[in-house]
Amino acid sequence: MILEVAMLQIKPGQTVQFERAFAQAQAIIAGMPGYLAHQLQRCLEAPDKYLLLVNWQRLEDHTIGFRQSPQYQEWRQLLHHFYEPFPTVEHFARVHPDSPLPG
Amino acid sequence: MILEVAMLQIKPGQTVQFERAFAQAQAIIAGMPGYLAHQLQRCLEAPDKYLLLVNWQRLEDHTIGFRQSPQYQEWRQLLHHFYEPFPTVEHFARVHPDSPLPG
Repeated sequence: MILEVAMLQIKPGQTVQFERAFAQAQAIIAGMPGYLAHQLQRCLEAPDKYLLLVNWQRLEDHTIGFRQSPQYQEWRQLLHHFYEPFPTVEHFARVHPDSPLPG
Repeated sequence: MILEVAMLQIKPGQTVQFERAFAQAQAIIAGMPGYLAHQLQRCLEAPDKYLLLVNWQRLEDHTIGFRQSPQYQEWRQLLHHFYEPFPTVEHFARVHPDSPLPG
């Protein structure tokens, strides 16, 4: 299992619209092969900043399966115009996976 | 519930020692009041980089309860010398908490 991590900086004054667009967009990733779960988290110290965490079965489910899909174009159209700068997306694998799971 | 997020950059060549120290240190946070769960995740694109995620019941369980405890001194001693630069720690709260949980 792979964790996709993206720190999202939203343009000032657009967080309400972003959250509304995300509520719609999340159905897109949730329907992709290899998708397991996701969380959108909002920063307490910097309220224009969000953390998107997505669990995928395999790295390629995100980097190839999702990013090369027609659904990705829809995702982009809904969300990418809110970001400034455009986020770096990285992937992580769990160390010591025997410990309990955060929610 | 609050998510503590720290991106940890480990000094080159010290990841094995860091993971070993973390395996010991994780018992320290896991015993603190308000601690709920944690994950240590390692970056696939940059293997010296780790993401630490900790769920706390309330923000103050981390910022006051943990950071002002004697146990924090032990945690520091075990882990802080591995970091370069010293990490920024931020806190997040979940948006749309009705969706499924990543592991």
